[in-house]
Amino acid sequence: MLGNGVVGILSETCNKWERRAPLTPAHCARLLHSGKGNAGVARIIVQPCTKRIYHDALYEEVGCEVSEDLTDCGLIVGVKQPKLEMILPDRGYAFFSHTHKAQKENMPLLDKLLAERATLYDYELIVGDHGKRLLAFGIYAGRAGMIDILHGLGQRYLSLGYSTPFLALGSAYMYPSLAAAKAAVISVGEEISTSGLPSSICPLVFVFTGTGNVSQGAQEIFKLLPHTFVDPSRLPELFETARSKNQQSRVMKRTFQVYGCVVTSKDMVQPKDPNITFNKVDYYSHPERYTPIFHERIAPYASVIVNCIYWEHRFPRLLTTKQLQDVTNKRRTLVAIADITCDIGGSIEFVNRATTIDSPFFRFDPLMESYHYDMEGSGVICSAVDILPTEFAKEASQHFGNILSQFIGYWATTKDLTELPRHLKEACITHRGALTSLYEYIPRIRNSTTDVRYNASNGNHLAGEERMIA
Amino acid sequence: MLGNGVVGILSETCNKWERRAPLTPAHCARLLHSGKGNAGVARIIVQPCTKRIYHDALYEEVGCEVSEDLTDCGLIVGVKQPKLEMILPDRGYAFFSHTHKAQKENMPLLDKLLAERATLYDYELIVGDHGKRLLAFGIYAGRAGMIDILHGLGQRYLSLGYSTPFLALGSAYMYPSLAAAKAAVISVGEEISTSGLPSSICPLVFVFTGTGNVSQGAQEIFKLLPHTFVDPSRLPELFETARSKNQQSRVMKRTFQVYGCVVTSKDMVQPKDPNITFNKVDYYSHPERYTPIFHERIAPYASVIVNCIYWEHRFPRLLTTKQLQDVTNKRRTLVAIADITCDIGGSIEFVNRATTIDSPFFRFDPLMESYHYDMEGSGVICSAVDILPTEFAKEASQHFGNILSQFIGYWATTKDLTELPRHLKEACITHRGALTSLYEYIPRIRNSTTDVRYNASNGNHLAGEERMIA
Repeated sequence: MLGNGVVGILSETCNKWERRAPLTPAHCARLLHSGKGNAGVARIIVQPCTKRIYHDALYEEVGCEVSEDLTDCGLIVGVKQPKLEMILPDRGYAFFSHTHKAQKENMPLLDKLLAERATLYDYELIVGDHGKRLLAFGIYAGRAGMIDILHGLGQRYLSLGYSTPFLALGSAYMYPSLAAAKAAVISVGEEISTSGLPSSICPLVFVFTGTGNVSQGAQEIFKLLPHTFVDPSRLPELFETARSKNQQSRVMKRTFQVYGCVVTSKDMVQPKDPNITFNKVDYYSHPERYTPIFHERIAPYASVIVNCIYWEHRFPRLLTTKQLQDVTNKRRTLVAIADITCDIGGSIEFVNRATTIDSPFFRFDPLMESYHYDMEGSGVICSAVDILPTEFAKEASQHFGNILSQFIGYWATTKDLTELPRHLKEACITHRGALTSLYEYIPRIRNSTTDVRYNASNGNHLAGEERMIA
Repeated sequence: MLGNGVVGILSETCNKWERRAPLTPAHCARLLHSGKGNAGVARIIVQPCTKRIYHDALYEEVGCEVSEDLTDCGLIVGVKQPKLEMILPDRGYAFFSHTHKAQKENMPLLDKLLAERATLYDYELIVGDHGKRLLAFGIYAGRAGMIDILHGLGQRYLSLGYSTPFLALGSAYMYPSLAAAKAAVISVGEEISTSGLPSSICPLVFVFTGTGNVSQGAQEIFKLLPHTFVDPSRLPELFETARSKNQQSRVMKRTFQVYGCVVTSKDMVQPKDPNITFNKVDYYSHPERYTPIFHERIAPYASVIVNCIYWEHRFPRLLTTKQLQDVTNKRRTLVAIADITCDIGGSIEFVNRATTIDSPFFRFDPLMESYHYDMEGSGVICSAVDILPTEFAKEASQHFGNILSQFIGYWATTKDLTELPRHLKEACITHRGALTSLYEYIPRIRNSTTDVRYNASNGNHLAGEERMIA
């Protein structure tokens, strides 16, 4: 079956909110009807789905077949993991399998693929010559996560007694397009420019951790508001200025902008040895030589922490629960945390659960160490949605398919791995029922007792955050 | 103090979501600076509030004073009931007091007003020459309630497995203006026109009960979608046509519009005596001579019931729980109910609780008679928010203040009730610490054992639904 030129597109079943498609009807049209005929795709069979953002008839219109039955397909593609019964013998598959770190929850899927002598290509493992992932949704996670936290801020500030322009914003999925969502944020920005924010919640500082795609997506949305970026070192000064201004004035002042602050590892840790200066390469090799400073230098000034970093257990956490308690005891500046990387039990210690698109926030009371699902009471609100990019299902699918459609021709026609370009070959975890040499380590770490979630490594050098988001 | 020309505006404290103001800064400017000086308003003192949609500085800019202290004010106005400690001796007050039916929860407020020798004007009781309320928010309730249920439909259909254009809509308050919210509904309509709705959820019929302001507000939003109104008698035909069309076609059809159906009492009941025809006056006088038909003729064809009627216990309910069970057993058409009148324990029997703006839906499973706060599982989702107009706080305040500001001059300068025009005089419940003659019945029904909520009547003849919404 492998390489027979017939491509199947799965109906996504992993999550109620999954509305993305790996290929849009436009991509399918190009693959089927490309003038040169060199895509090598003879037929595309699409499983019917009433949730996919592109409905079945649109695929039919461009010449795809719509059928539950994918037995004719040599290559079957999806976004997320399919159900086990969708793994047919001797086919090729491409999706985010989340198996290469021997993730426990997906081992039955890997076993099934091996048992069926299937070939698996994993999007997450397609890495370009500069070590960057080629197929990623990170920027959409950043965009959606940022809009969602602005929406949450409106609700939270109302509970704290303040009507703010953020109330006039929905979650990302409530807009028909990324453009419409951006227009809404711009409108919020105009209201901040003209009517201002209550001075008692200002300066309103958004701290972004990291500079990768996720952070860039989040900042792209943030920059639609009237804003100033401040260097991490100048945060205390920003607060001093605001305080003295307020003291000078008897009348309640309004503030007409928000502030952004991008922090990287040099703002999160410092060398224990006072005689050496921060060095990123040294920190990554010897994290034990560094001590955390984020909770002292940054967190006390943040209204919102937008977490966009990839993190491993060998690093100090960005913010422990104890540190959050200390920060909260000193000042009540921090209102919200958007954990866009949704790193459960990771860099932000108290994030011990994911949230859903329809109920994106929990409230954590650091003093009681308690979790709540309302917007009232003390503590910080936190979003931790692990499927953010599907909030912009249309644009995320277009973006993804633009790149994926360049690979489909190879996978759909190749019977032999050696014929593939390096980046596609190296993304192959199983071939005809056997693990490829790059991934032979999986059974070893699978049987080890260590916390493979954070320590597994297949030796590649992906940009951190990009691993997480699919 | 009465009639001293100094007006106070209360900070609203009744509900976290209350952001309306009885008078906007523009209204205050006109009252203070009207060229002719005949408004008789010398000063306006505004209690500071960080939640009011118009912030304090805007009032200050037009010449109002901002102060917690309203002791100088002879007339103090608000939207909803103030806290008891805000009732100062010998002042005039105007707000929605919800006391004229001897509503139990507001009797302490009435007692306090009487004890402080205060004068109370109640907006709800200002009735024009044609028996219609002059100060009402009903149309805003209809608009906000309709947008909210469209938003809820998107979430509910997703849980049922369908991605629909309704998902791209937020709650009413998530838009910066009514115009922006309408633009978003228009955009949803365009998506329905071009991409359609899955045929398996069609024909999608919205049933509106009543023809008052609330219903008109709801229909105004509905009409922004591609739609056809059908006569109640033609509902069965609509379904027959759709079914036969679907059977003819092998391919999954899409439907490119929604349907509306406005029902009035003649569609809700019929005379028990087959020899007489429906007569509204007779029905209102002798409801016991009528038998309900809504559950047989209308409910089985409704996808969404938008409830906009005023109802009293002497009438048959619009839909009993038993009737809903029967309807659900026969067919699963009904998906959602928007009880915009929020008539707890009223026309829709199972609506036994109000919901909040931030959590506007509950799910009722008629077969288990159980209530849930998620969107999964069987049953119908239901919204029952009792403060809908504040979702459009800006426009609702403008609309309200446009009319209220015409009354302020009279109330602010009058020491003697007899100087007032009829409609303002008749809205006075207490004057200088005594019930006025029109409202002397209140203590009687207050002490009676009957369910005053539904049986109390002060003999006025307001258009039904208008009584409910403030």
